[in-house]
Formats: sequence, structure tokens, C-alpha cells
Amino acid sequence: MLYRNQKLSETKVFKDPVHRYVHVRDQVIWDLIGTEEFQRLRRIKQLGTTYFTFHGAEHSRFGHSLGVYEIIRRMIDDVFTGREAWNDDDRLLCLCAALLHDVGHGPFSHAYEKVFKLNHEEFTQKIILGDTEIHAVLTKVSTTFPQEVAEVIGKTSKNKLVTSMISSQIDADRMDYLLRDAHFTGVSYGNFDLERLLRVMRPQQHQVVIKHSGMHAVEHYIMSRYQMYWQIYFHPVSRSAEVILAKILHRAKKLHHEYYNFKHEPIHFYSIFAEEVTLEDYIKLDEAVMTYYFHMWQEEDDAILSDLCRRFLNRKFFQYVDFTDKWEVEEWSELLHLFKEANIDPAYYLVVDSTSDLPYDFYREGEGEERLPILLLMPSGELRELSRESYIVEAISGKKQTDKKLFYPHDLIYNGEDNRDVKDRIIRLLESK
Amino acid sequence: MLYRNQKLSETKVFKDPVHRYVHVRDQVIWDLIGTEEFQRLRRIKQLGTTYFTFHGAEHSRFGHSLGVYEIIRRMIDDVFTGREAWNDDDRLLCLCAALLHDVGHGPFSHAYEKVFKLNHEEFTQKIILGDTEIHAVLTKVSTTFPQEVAEVIGKTSKNKLVTSMISSQIDADRMDYLLRDAHFTGVSYGNFDLERLLRVMRPQQHQVVIKHSGMHAVEHYIMSRYQMYWQIYFHPVSRSAEVILAKILHRAKKLHHEYYNFKHEPIHFYSIFAEEVTLEDYIKLDEAVMTYYFHMWQEEDDAILSDLCRRFLNRKFFQYVDFTDKWEVEEWSELLHLFKEANIDPAYYLVVDSTSDLPYDFYREGEGEERLPILLLMPSGELRELSRESYIVEAISGKKQTDKKLFYPHDLIYNGEDNRDVKDRIIRLLESK
Amino acid sequence: MLYRNQKLSETKVFKDPVHRYVHVRDQVIWDLIGTEEFQRLRRIKQLGTTYFTFHGAEHSRFGHSLGVYEIIRRMIDDVFTGREAWNDDDRLLCLCAALLHDVGHGPFSHAYEKVFKLNHEEFTQKIILGDTEIHAVLTKVSTTFPQEVAEVIGKTSKNKLVTSMISSQIDADRMDYLLRDAHFTGVSYGNFDLERLLRVMRPQQHQVVIKHSGMHAVEHYIMSRYQMYWQIYFHPVSRSAEVILAKILHRAKKLHHEYYNFKHEPIHFYSIFAEEVTLEDYIKLDEAVMTYYFHMWQEEDDAILSDLCRRFLNRKFFQYVDFTDKWEVEEWSELLHLFKEANIDPAYYLVVDSTSDLPYDFYREGEGEERLPILLLMPSGELRELSRESYIVEAISGKKQTDKKLFYPHDLIYNGEDNRDVKDRIIRLLESK
Amino acid sequence: MLYRNQKLSETKVFKDPVHRYVHVRDQVIWDLIGTEEFQRLRRIKQLGTTYFTFHGAEHSRFGHSLGVYEIIRRMIDDVFTGREAWNDDDRLLCLCAALLHDVGHGPFSHAYEKVFKLNHEEFTQKIILGDTEIHAVLTKVSTTFPQEVAEVIGKTSKNKLVTSMISSQIDADRMDYLLRDAHFTGVSYGNFDLERLLRVMRPQQHQVVIKHSGMHAVEHYIMSRYQMYWQIYFHPVSRSAEVILAKILHRAKKLHHEYYNFKHEPIHFYSIFAEEVTLEDYIKLDEAVMTYYFHMWQEEDDAILSDLCRRFLNRKFFQYVDFTDKWEVEEWSELLHLFKEANIDPAYYLVVDSTSDLPYDFYREGEGEERLPILLLMPSGELRELSRESYIVEAISGKKQTDKKLFYPHDLIYNGEDNRDVKDRIIRLLESK
Repeated sequence: MLYRNQKLSETKVFKDPVHRYVHVRDQVIWDLIGTEEFQRLRRIKQLGTTYFTFHGAEHSRFGHSLGVYEIIRRMIDDVFTGREAWNDDDRLLCLCAALLHDVGHGPFSHAYEKVFKLNHEEFTQKIILGDTEIHAVLTKVSTTFPQEVAEVIGKTSKNKLVTSMISSQIDADRMDYLLRDAHFTGVSYGNFDLERLLRVMRPQQHQVVIKHSGMHAVEHYIMSRYQMYWQIYFHPVSRSAEVILAKILHRAKKLHHEYYNFKHEPIHFYSIFAEEVTLEDYIKLDEAVMTYYFHMWQEEDDAILSDLCRRFLNRKFFQYVDFTDKWEVEEWSELLHLFKEANIDPAYYLVVDSTSDLPYDFYREGEGEERLPILLLMPSGELRELSRESYIVEAISGKKQTDKKLFYPHDLIYNGEDNRDVKDRIIRLLESK
Repeated sequence: MLYRNQKLSETKVFKDPVHRYVHVRDQVIWDLIGTEEFQRLRRIKQLGTTYFTFHGAEHSRFGHSLGVYEIIRRMIDDVFTGREAWNDDDRLLCLCAALLHDVGHGPFSHAYEKVFKLNHEEFTQKIILGDTEIHAVLTKVSTTFPQEVAEVIGKTSKNKLVTSMISSQIDADRMDYLLRDAHFTGVSYGNFDLERLLRVMRPQQHQVVIKHSGMHAVEHYIMSRYQMYWQIYFHPVSRSAEVILAKILHRAKKLHHEYYNFKHEPIHFYSIFAEEVTLEDYIKLDEAVMTYYFHMWQEEDDAILSDLCRRFLNRKFFQYVDFTDKWEVEEWSELLHLFKEANIDPAYYLVVDSTSDLPYDFYREGEGEERLPILLLMPSGELRELSRESYIVEAISGKKQTDKKLFYPHDLIYNGEDNRDVKDRIIRLLESK
Repeated sequence: MLYRNQKLSETKVFKDPVHRYVHVRDQVIWDLIGTEEFQRLRRIKQLGTTYFTFHGAEHSRFGHSLGVYEIIRRMIDDVFTGREAWNDDDRLLCLCAALLHDVGHGPFSHAYEKVFKLNHEEFTQKIILGDTEIHAVLTKVSTTFPQEVAEVIGKTSKNKLVTSMISSQIDADRMDYLLRDAHFTGVSYGNFDLERLLRVMRPQQHQVVIKHSGMHAVEHYIMSRYQMYWQIYFHPVSRSAEVILAKILHRAKKLHHEYYNFKHEPIHFYSIFAEEVTLEDYIKLDEAVMTYYFHMWQEEDDAILSDLCRRFLNRKFFQYVDFTDKWEVEEWSELLHLFKEANIDPAYYLVVDSTSDLPYDFYREGEGEERLPILLLMPSGELRELSRESYIVEAISGKKQTDKKLFYPHDLIYNGEDNRDVKDRIIRLLESK
Repeated sequence: MLYRNQKLSETKVFKDPVHRYVHVRDQVIWDLIGTEEFQRLRRIKQLGTTYFTFHGAEHSRFGHSLGVYEIIRRMIDDVFTGREAWNDDDRLLCLCAALLHDVGHGPFSHAYEKVFKLNHEEFTQKIILGDTEIHAVLTKVSTTFPQEVAEVIGKTSKNKLVTSMISSQIDADRMDYLLRDAHFTGVSYGNFDLERLLRVMRPQQHQVVIKHSGMHAVEHYIMSRYQMYWQIYFHPVSRSAEVILAKILHRAKKLHHEYYNFKHEPIHFYSIFAEEVTLEDYIKLDEAVMTYYFHMWQEEDDAILSDLCRRFLNRKFFQYVDFTDKWEVEEWSELLHLFKEANIDPAYYLVVDSTSDLPYDFYREGEGEERLPILLLMPSGELRELSRESYIVEAISGKKQTDKKLFYPHDLIYNGEDNRDVKDRIIRLLESK
């Protein structure tokens, strides 16, 4: 039998707290799960630093990847199979892309990618196409199969329908993570009705669309997403942890470039600092390794590096205030100046972080980046963009919400006698806003 | 105001997936949570290697410790306060012991303790009494307070009631972990009715007892515990992971003692290998650090060490069969012999692991170790040992159940052409049982 | 001890699927629950005819009333007690009003009230003030107490704070029914975070306000409410059941006024048909009694009454189409005419039903009816109306959504040979829209 | 297309709080649900009088019947289809039997059947075979089909496998009601892992068996069942309600036989009192009708009947004490005598009720009634009776537990001055036990 069609003798199941069970029947999927690159996802947390705020959020990308696979499997096996617009030859492609879509994530992805100008989607594709166990499995399906999978994940595939199942404004990725993150953090916001959404999804040539009767379920999903972003993902305490993480990485890179003599050399980071990261090095770096470095760097002589590492490991994060328009340029300059005067390097200890989200958007002709709209399939067969039918979605579409905060080390500024009056001026300035 | 009585200006809450919220009002508790030794618990998984079998079980001892604290807090504040046998002066002692009871756990505790003959309860006490941030906080309560907390955890306290709240056959520790592990793994077995159990608990001079009307809730709790042990905690795949973990540690220790020249020196293990572990070294070793070593040791020249590390990280565990009485001594000798002949060192690749549990037991006079029985408070005021009232508990009391398995590397034995006929004899022997 | 302060010797609990347990400690509350008027609520469904659509929705107003009481109890005991603006003398008033707020509901309230021009709030007050067991209990508290309770429920009380706890846009009534109806129907929409909402509520002189940090929880609550209305409460199948129910009552009343000779005389309805309903008659009529009449009236000679009763009991409801602006007056006249020609009385068999909801509104000066806005308590102490802070709420405030449907008996029109061509013309007209 | 193979154009779903959704695709099933006899189940509560104790338990047999159908549907479609021992021709038979298995229940079944010596299984068969809408639908499948369905429900079918799916010690009926009753009452006891149980069920020639790997799931199910029986189903307060219900029916029957002149004649009961109940009368009697009579009979002149009806409607039940061996025959005679002396008729006001359960049993040769044992399918293919493998089940098998209680009207005996000293002697006697 062709490898692509091989089935396990009995369905294997993974007990899953979100989907109850994840079902695997295809040999290809089973083999992919067993690869070292996929197992590595156990060492990358799904929500980065969020567990410092919501202690339940310690789950890894491993379970999420299985979850996205399971949603796609159910979408295909329970709903799409047998429908006109669905080509069952795409099934395996779709399942593999779902399972592997996050395989290129690095440790604490967000800060890591930003500091080193890396992109996890790019590495997902490299892992699929490079010299890896995953590549070896996919190649057994066909020589072009790794490329096909990579293109779906990279959104360059000609197969628009499959692409939309994995990444769009209502894709399996988002559906799984909202439910999963809600379960692990313990909040109720993310609990939209997955069963119903699956039942109203319909394959069409260019994308998945939603039966009109499921409109309220989509609204619920969009509101869940909105709530999760503002209550969980953008929580300022987690952002404070990320700010410190980013500053650690910045500092280590800078020290390395300045030939600082590390007690514990950052060998795992050499090619990353040089911005010539190899696939092998990339894969080696997971959260255990990174955390190990933070441990060791607590002992470095560089006061900034060791302080930041201690802060990260022991959860002594920065405080924050809203960073609003009330800040005049002169005041800001003064603040920077005062920090320096107080011997607190503002490059590491005074950080503005801005985050924003667009809960839902639709394509407007002539605009730059295209976001695939959510389309409703009306009883007449016509397709209508969601916000034209839902006045709740209409109300929030295209409205970007932004939160800007200023992070600073409360302890250094409010405690201690040295530079007391400079620090008091800092305090007055901060508290005047 | 005395430090022991200081309250936060507003109750702080931790969102918790098991208890919804964990409530902290006491300054002492807040300060303890902020210590580095307590934050370290985020880097020690609650269920060791179980996440390899139940992928949701990635939660750490941090959340569990908060959970035990919260159960004790509710027990006291919602049920005990105002009752005759309860002395409110014990409240803080009880809360601190609950919060800190697991603080001495090491990475992947079970295998780690066994190989190095360490005991986490002993280290919990050392952390409480030693030169640590936790000690500093506790000392601010009173100079004798650290000792009092340590004695409750060590079960040497004269305060039997408080001790029984933290460790007995129906204590806050077990109650939290059953619920928590059920939530994270996604199984339904652990879901006994905590609300009801709390409401029927009554403080008495020597221990917590249970109102007779709550007997069925206790039965449910005991059956939940039984199910969790056999379905989750003793799952053979997790035990296979532990077997490998233990063998890695054994091997590294042996190599170290034989002056093997490590590419990556086990500096974090020196005092542990020497069986003279210091508190400082103990605390430094968490699962990130240990995992880092496994990463590095994949590259060692020692074939056994590098193979075992690869197996652990990539989840290529040993297979297993029941190890029953059917094995004759001679057969076993032959098996060992065949492994050696096939060049597979049985000291590392052929492992018998036995696990057993006593779902409930009661004290029998004249017997060695005493287990505090669960006592029911009858309407008459009389106390009756649980198994005398519950025929279900009676049926299982004192009945130890044991599971013995033989673990071996399926891949090495079933694949490859070298020593093929020796290996085939191994297979015949294994499959004859 | 004063009756108002009497406590039960031990807290009594009711197992509740929404709040886990409902706790009763006050003798007054215990006595009220035991009255026949309160027990009668077990025979009035919480959601009227909704169980025909969502079969789980068979729960009565009894559990809901306990639930509202429990929310208020927790609000007071866990959050308000000890705060400046809270007067603990109001506690009992508040608990009683919460428990009794729905006691005046009749069978399948909505249709019943509309047809007979009754108002359940008015009857709630009559039951509290009239010659009832409830009145007797309340009077033992004080002679003016029944009046005080009635005024809170009637929203004429001077005690604005207490009134707002029971009825406002974010009151205990709504909070309980959203959660409860979600539990029983099995949908996930209603699951906002009650714990969090309770924790951020603050008593103020004129109303309960919400701490600013709880804004997202309020948004979630409002969106839950919106979803429940459109997905559950306004479901057209339940409305179809209500249409039939209303028509049964209309028909019976008309027949009675026309001296129709009932086989089963509507003795329970005499004073209601006469629009001079007595309190005693009102209380006697519950859903068991009304259903009994529908049973009996299936055997009446009047074809319309017996047909409608059969339809109701056996769930043979009317079909529906959207009733839009596309209908011209002439077409509508024609439709009425055709129904008559086909011998299907449009007064009973052609019904337009319109339903609408305002998800959230705030007071606009100069407008008629005032709706208490939801106020956020800012860190500065200032109060801000919710929609000024929440752009999601802003988007939907004051926007009334309406759904208008036309109900008709599909079976009578599509089946049968008599008047076939008239019926075909009806079909063409209906399907042209 | 044959009626038995007709499918709806799209799957219809019922939102269900236990199974999320119940899926219907077969036209036959859809038509059965629409019959008046099936819709009647909405007016029969699943748990009779339990809602007086657990107020959430107001759900009817309608939802349960859908649930049993859904479990069977999943068992067949997700697990059995394609397996050797499964004959897909039995699918429809099985689904119909599942859906209809409870259709013959009367109002408050337990007391009703006992008093009138009726049997709901017998009436289920009569409804399937008699002149009913259900019969008409089934006959369209084939002329013998009603008989086949009736035999499965009556356990006289030759098709042992199908019978065991619907009624055995681990059947779809029990699986649904445990989960459903747990959901509605709000207790956690009934939550065994249905998903897992379904996945390990295997069809065999004579019955469904369970894969050995699912043994712990079966244990959990059996323990859940045990807990539900003793905590919910046998709760003494619900039994007290049943005692009163039975006594009302007894009294009415007796009065009728004695030519008592009812103000409200029991016309619905004539054929029942005469023990010649017709199918038509049987079907007409539901809980609305019965409750209506209780309402009316509150006004009867017969003091016993009116008092008992008031007690039932207003939840003024009898108190109870354990009825143990401590009662001597003479004491019991004395008690009866004292009741008469106090003018409280012991035939209605002094009731011993005994209830018992066998949590699990297996067939023992030579014994009378056979209970189908639960069989485990071992890896070897051998079948082993459950209690031989599970020591927990072994411990409880065949052990009947019994609870015997004495019910009496606390109010009549403890209050009032008439016959005070006789009543005091009653109290002394009752309290001496």
C-alpha cells in the first residue's frame, strides 16, 4: 500500500483536555508526531511568559499542534467529506499542515523573534524542507509533498481552500488556541461552541465559508477572541516579563559583540547573535536551554545582565503605567535624563511597549495587506461578508485597539537612599501622568 | 501591626483553573509566594514524566502549592473558624505549611530521589530552616516560626490537628492534586466533590474528622484517588520515561566516578554525585537545568549516555511486558546473558519496575508504620473508622495492589541484522511469557 | 431573639447545578422557601415554551429564585459587608426581595400575560402584600416589612442601591438566568465569569457600580446576554409555540364570552376571562393546571380550539418566514383573503410576531423611560458610564434589534386536496418573499 | 427508496446538555420523535419526585430517550460499523428500541406502578404494538418491525447482542441516565468517561463486551452508578415524597371503591382503579393531569385525601428515622395502637419503606434470575467476567445494600395540644430507637 494511505491497525488516541481525545489513524501523522522536531514542541510553551500571570498557562505547543490537527481532522471527516467542493486528495496535506504549522517556533517566541529578527513561519518551512526527521517522513509521501505542506503554511499555496482552513480569521489554529488557553488559564472567555462552528463550515473553491444559520456562533467566536486578547494575551504583567526577556537577549548580544568575557559562554547563541542562524542551532534552542542560560548569567559580572536574569527567574518584573499622549517630548527627555542621573540605564530599565489588535477585519479594495474576510453562505447560495449581516461584528470591524505602557523598575526607584532626590523627581514625573 | 497579622489592602487573586480563584490577603503569604525558592516551583513539573503520556500534564508544582494553600484557607475560613476545637492562632502556621509543603521537590522528583537517595521532605525542611528567602520571611513572624512550619511538614509537630490537614489520607495536598491532575490531563476520574468534603470536615483535637453525612463524598474521593493512581500516575509509558531518566542519572554518576572525560561537565551534579549535596546546589537544579544536560549529553562519546538522553528527549522509550511469576530464575539469567551477548548492556536496557498502592488503610495495633485512619463523626458524637461504615472502603482497605513490568528497548531487539539470532532468542523468550 | 435575626442551627444547603450549593442560614429565608406560594414556582417553567426547542430547558422558576437569592447573598456576605456605602440592615430586605422577585409569574408567563393583560410584577407584589403564607412570614419580621420588600421588587423603593442589586442592567436576576439557562439548554453562550463580576461590584449610594478593572468581565456579560437572547430566548420555534398558546387562550376566552358550551368548563379561568382575576385564582393557575385544560380541550367540538390544543401538546407548531418590508399592503390583504377562502381562519392561523431587544442602553436626558446605566468606578474614584470606556459596548448601545416573523400552518396549506388551488396561490405568495 | 433507508436532506440536531448534540439523519427516527406518544414523555419527569430534594432534577424522559438513542447511534456508527460481529441490518432496530425504551412510563412511575400493579415495560410494548402513531411509523418499516422492536425492549428477542446494548449492566440506558441526572442535579458523581467506554465496547455474538484496556473505565462507571443510587436516587426526602404520593393514590382508589362522592371525580383513573386500564387511558395520564387532580383533591371533604394532596404540592413531607432490628414486634404494635389512639390513621401516616440495590452482579449457575455479567475481552481473545479481573468490583459484586426507613408526620405528632400525652408516648417510642 502507498505510504500516504497506510493506516494504523487501530486508531490511537491522545487524551486531550480540550477535545477529550485526539484520534490518529494515518501512519504518516503517527510518524510525524514521533519525530524529534515535533517532540521538541513540548519544550516551547504555547503562551510564552503568560504563565507568570496565569499560572495554569504552562502548556506547550505540542498539545496545541495536536489540537489543530484534530479540529482539521473532524472538519474533514465529519463535515467536508462527500461535499462537492471538497477534494479528498487534499486530506493528508491538510492534516500535515495543521500538525506542523507551529513547528518552527522558538523559545518564548515573541521576544526572541523581535530581538533577533527571526520569523517562526520561515523556520517552520525550513524544518519541513531541510534535513530533518519531519522532512524524511513527508518525503516518503512524495518528493513534492514537503514543498506542498510548506506552501500551505506559508500561505503561498495555490490551494486557497486548504490554506484558509489553517490560517484565516476563523481557522483551526485560532479555534484550538482560544479553547486551549481558556482551559489552562481557567478563564471562561474562550469557550465558544466549537461543535456548532464545525457543523456550519462549508468548503468552497477559494475558502471555507460559514452557513448563515451559524452566524451567531461566529459572533461568539469573535467576541471570545477579543476577550482572550485583552484579558489574557495582552496582560501587562506578561508583557513586563517579555520586556525583561527581550532586554536580557539584547544585553547578551551587545556584550557578545563587545567581546565581553562571559563566565558562561553563549555558545548556543553564536550564530543567532551573528544573524546567521543555522537550522541546527535554531532547533537546539528551546526554553529549557534558554532558561539554563538565564540561570548561569545570574552569576555574570555584568550588573545589568545578571540583574535582568534574576528578575526573570524570580518574577521581579517591572511596574507599568499607561503611556498616554499626556507625555510631552520634553518630559520624556527629562525622564530619560533623570534615569541616567540615577544610574539606571534607560536602555534597559525604561521601556515603552505597545500592543494592538484588530478583532476582525475585511478586505477593502486598494488597501495593502489583505485579510481574508469571513463569508456567510446565505440560504440563496449567495456569499455575504460577515460584518454586513452581523451588527455586532460590524461595530468592531477594522477598529484597531492599542495599548501602550511604560515599564520601569519600581523597586530601584522607590527604594534605597542613593540618588534619593533624583529618584523622587522621577516618581513625581511618573505619578503626574 | 505585627507582621503575622498584616493584611494586603485588597485581596489579591490568582486565576486558577481548579479553584477558579486563589485568594491571598495575608502579607506573609504574599511575601512567601514572591520568594525565589517558591518561584522555582514553576520549573518543577507536578507529575514528572507523565506529560509524555498525557500531554496536558505539563503543569508545575507552583499551581498545586497555591491550590493546597487555597483549600486549607477555605477549610479554615469557611468551615473551622468559630468551632470549638479550632484555635485560630494556628491559621497562619497551617497556611504556610500548606503553601510550602512541596518546596523541596527536585527535578522529576521520583527518579531523581531514588537514584541519589534524596528525600524531598527533608529538603523542604532544609529550605525552610536554611539560609533562604523563605526562611527570612518566616523568621519575621517569629524566631521559632520556621521550626514550627518545618515540623508540621515533617509530621513531627505536636499539633496533630494541623498536621492532619496537610498530610493524612484525606488532606488538602491529595485533594488538590487529584482535582488538578484531572483538569490538566483531561480525565474525569479525579472529580470528587470538594465543596461537599470541605463542608463536612470538622476539627478535633487530634485530627480532622468527617461528619457521617459526608461518608459518600469520602468514598467518592477514595475511589477517585484509586482511579487516578492506576490510570494516570502509574501509567507504564510514564514509568518507561522514568526508567530511562533514572538510567541516565546512574550512567552519568558512574562515568563521573570513573573519571570519564565529559564534553559537558556535570558541574551542577558534583555535590549530588558525591552524595554531599548542599542546599544551594539542590535549589539550583531544576528541570530546565537537567534538561539542558540531557541536551548536551546527546553529544557525549559514551554510547549509553548519549543514547539514553536522545531517547528521553525524543520520547523513544522502552517497551514493556508484565513481569509475572512465570519467569523462572534460569530464564531470567538466560535473558541477561543474551542481552550481553547481543551487546545490549542489561544494566541499562533491561529494567524491572514495580509500583504499588494501598488505596486506603487504617491503623492496626501492633503494626509498624501507622497511617492515620479516616474517622467519621457519628450523629451521637462517637468517632468511627471509615471502613467500618462503608462497605466499599472496607472492601479495599489494606489491600495493596502491585504492578511489575519489564522494560526493554524494542527497537534494538527487533531491528537490525547484527546478532540477529541472539536477538531472535531474546524475542522468543520475551514473547513466551 | 428577634425573628429577623434568627439563624438555623446549621447552614442548610441546596445542591445547585449553577452555584454548586445555595446556602441558607436565616430562619426567615428558610420559612419563605417552605411557603406554598414559593413551592408553586416548581410548577412554572423558567423559560416557558423554550423546552420545545431546547429540550433541556425544563427547569422551573424555583431553582432560579434560589439562584438569585444565592448571588445576592454572596454579593453581600463576600463583597459588600464592611464597605462604607453598605448598610447591613438592608441585608434581609435584599435577600427576601431576591428570593421572591418572580413569585407572581403565571403559567407560560409571556403569552398568558399578553392575552389577559396581566402583569407578573403586579402579582408578585399582591402575593407579598395579600393574604398568603409569604405575607405571614414577612409580617413576623415587622409590619412594614412586606411593603418594603414589595417596593424593592416594584422599583418604587427609596432604597436605590438595593433596587439596583435586584433589577438593573447588571443585576442578580439576569446573572442567574443567563448562567442557569445556559446550563440547562447546554449552550456555552451564557457562561460569563460570575466570580469575577461579584468581586468587582461595589455598593454606592444610588446603585451598584463596577470597578474599572472588571470592565472586560462586564463586556463579556453583556455579550453573553446578547447571544442568549438571539440564540435561545427568541428562537422562532419557541415563539411558534407561544403563538399557538396565545391563540388557544384567545379562542377559549372568545368561546366563553359567546356562551359556548364547553365539555370541560374553564372554571379556573372564569375570573381571568372576566378580567377580574382574584389573587386566589391567580395562584391556583400553574402549568400543570393549564396543561390539563389543553388535554381536555382536545376533545371539544370547536375545531379551532381542539386543533390548537392538539398542536400545542404534540408539538405540531406553525412554520414561519421572515416578515419583511417586502410585503405590500395589497399582498397582505390578499393573503388574508386567501386564507379565508381556504377555510383557514387567519385570526388564529396567520400570525405576525415581532420581538426585539436592546442589549444595553444608557440614560439619555429628556427621554422617556429611564434605564439605569452601568457605571464603572475609575481608579480616580470618578464614575463613568460603561459605553464611554468600552468600545464594544459603545458599538451596540441603544441599538434595538428586531425580528419579525410570519407564522402559518404549513401542513394545512401544503397538504390535502380541498381548496388546492387557493392553497397553491397562498404558497406562491408566501414563497415569493 | 425504502422507508427504512430514507435519510433527511441534512442531519438535524438537538442541542443536548449531556452529549452536546443529538444527531438525527434517519427519517424513521425523525418521524418517531414527532409522534404524540413520544412528545408525551416531556410530561413525565425522569426522576419522579427527586426534584423535591435536588431542585435541578426537573428534566423529563424526553431528553433521556434522545440521549439513549444518541449513545447507541455513536456506538454503532463510530465503533461497531465494519466489525465482524456487527450486522448493520440491526442498526435501525437498535436505534428505535433505544429511542422508545421508556415510552411506556407513567406519571411518577415508581409509586404509580406499585400502587396499581402496572409495569411500564409492558406498556412500552403495548404502545409499540397498539393503535398508536408510533406503531404506524414502525409498521412503515415492515409489518414485523414493531414486534421486533418490542421484543428487544422486552428482552425476549433472539438478538442477544442488540438486547444487551439497550439493557444489561452496562447499557446505553444507564450510561445516559447517570450522566444526565448528574448534570441536572449538579452532582459530580455520575461523570464517568463515556467517550472511553464507547471506544472499548466490542460487539460479540451474544452481547457487547469490553476490551480489557477499558477495565478501569468500567470500574469508574460502576462506582458512579453506586454513588448515584445512594446519594441521589434513594435520597430519603424523595422517598418521603413517594410515600405520600402512593398514599394519595391508595386513598383515592379506596374512596372510589367505597362510592365516596368526589367533588372532582377521578374520571382519568376509573379504568386504572378497576385494574382494567386501557392503552388510551394509560397514555392520557401524565404528570400534568395527575398534578391537576392533586390540586382539586385538596378541596375534598375526605380529610386524609385532602391533607395528603396538600402535603405533596406544598412539600410538607413526612419525617423519617432508620427502621432497624431494634424494633420489637410489641413496640411496633404499640406504635400502631398509639397512632390510632391519637387519631392519626397509621395506614396512611406510618409507613415503612425499604430500598435496596445490587451495584453489580454476575450470573451464578443454578440461581434464579440471571443478570448478564460484564465481560472483558482479554488480549488473548478470551472473555473474562469483570469481577475476576477487578478487585474493586469483586469486592462489591453480589452485595445487596438495603436501607429501611420509617416515615411519619412530624408536625402532627410534635405539635398541637389534643392527645398530647398519647403523642408524647409516640415521641418517646420513636426517639428510643
